[in-house]
Amino acid sequence: MSTTVKRHPERGAYDRETVDAILDAGFLCHVGFSLEGQPYVIPMLHARVGDVLYLHGSTASRLMQALASRAPVCATVTHLDGIVLAKSVFNHSVNYRSAVVLGSARLVEGDEKVAALEAIVNHIEPGRWDVARRPTDKELRTTQVVALPLDECSAKIRTGPPKESPGDEDLDVPSGVVQLRLVRE
Amino acid sequence: MSTTVKRHPERGAYDRETVDAILDAGFLCHVGFSLEGQPYVIPMLHARVGDVLYLHGSTASRLMQALASRAPVCATVTHLDGIVLAKSVFNHSVNYRSAVVLGSARLVEGDEKVAALEAIVNHIEPGRWDVARRPTDKELRTTQVVALPLDECSAKIRTGPPKESPGDEDLDVPSGVVQLRLVRE
Repeated sequence: MSTTVKRHPERGAYDRETVDAILDAGFLCHVGFSLEGQPYVIPMLHARVGDVLYLHGSTASRLMQALASRAPVCATVTHLDGIVLAKSVFNHSVNYRSAVVLGSARLVEGDEKVAALEAIVNHIEPGRWDVARRPTDKELRTTQVVALPLDECSAKIRTGPPKESPGDEDLDVPSGVVQLRLVRE
Repeated sequence: MSTTVKRHPERGAYDRETVDAILDAGFLCHVGFSLEGQPYVIPMLHARVGDVLYLHGSTASRLMQALASRAPVCATVTHLDGIVLAKSVFNHSVNYRSAVVLGSARLVEGDEKVAALEAIVNHIEPGRWDVARRPTDKELRTTQVVALPLDECSAKIRTGPPKESPGDEDLDVPSGVVQLRLVRE
């Protein structure tokens, strides 16, 4: 499977519960697609509903046209959790959770489209769909929604303290983890 | 130019000062490359030095092998700055700064490789290179560094309050920006 974690396989996870938790913990993903052999990576907002990841954008965008054309895409969500300071430069790392989804998206229309937009808005700000003015038909026409199935997905997670190399333990170098957190102010 | 911002062109910027500031404000990028037609987007750590973006990884990784083979890649850095709550669902947005770099990377060796690793470590934790144990020759051999030139790059930035549609201003819906910030704890 293309999503098999080859490097640091102990960090890999393939169960949907783990993948879903990472997708649901943030609303920013990075979507990769290729145009004439050149890969592009574009930040997008997402929401997961059941077995699909919904993405949206302007009907006129190259990105949405590529997604709607069922081109192969990759959507990656990454959370930075900490800076791992080891006693050696080589063992420095970061704690993170990332989920990778591979596949082709399908265009979403009708009631599912409205439900997907509701999910995206409420994912960014819970309950917001019921507070703000709902989209008009014209607004809906200028927005495109696609669904990327979670058929081929995986997670990669690093947690915990630095892993020191043999012989480094006694070095007089401060080490540990600096926690990182995205806060709303 | 492939990096020309087509959607919301008013958010686009192409001067290196703007792009560099976005690259330098974080150390996590998302790197896109294609293998047999399938795009992949992988989180990586980066540091900019002058006119190149340095990336590193295990010599054995598929990702580094793809990067070192001069395949076309895309490196994107995104900072989420705020949630933009508008009076209508349609005008909801996020404030963000993103930089996109397109090109092909070259393999970095010798003194430049060590300097690049120093830049990456110090970018994550300033001054850390002088505190921690330096890499051995063996450690250096298991790490690969590539340089992606900043020849073709662009930035996209949204700042400020929600933009309301005509007629929405008087709706009784709370609106504004929720600031987001990545903090070290």
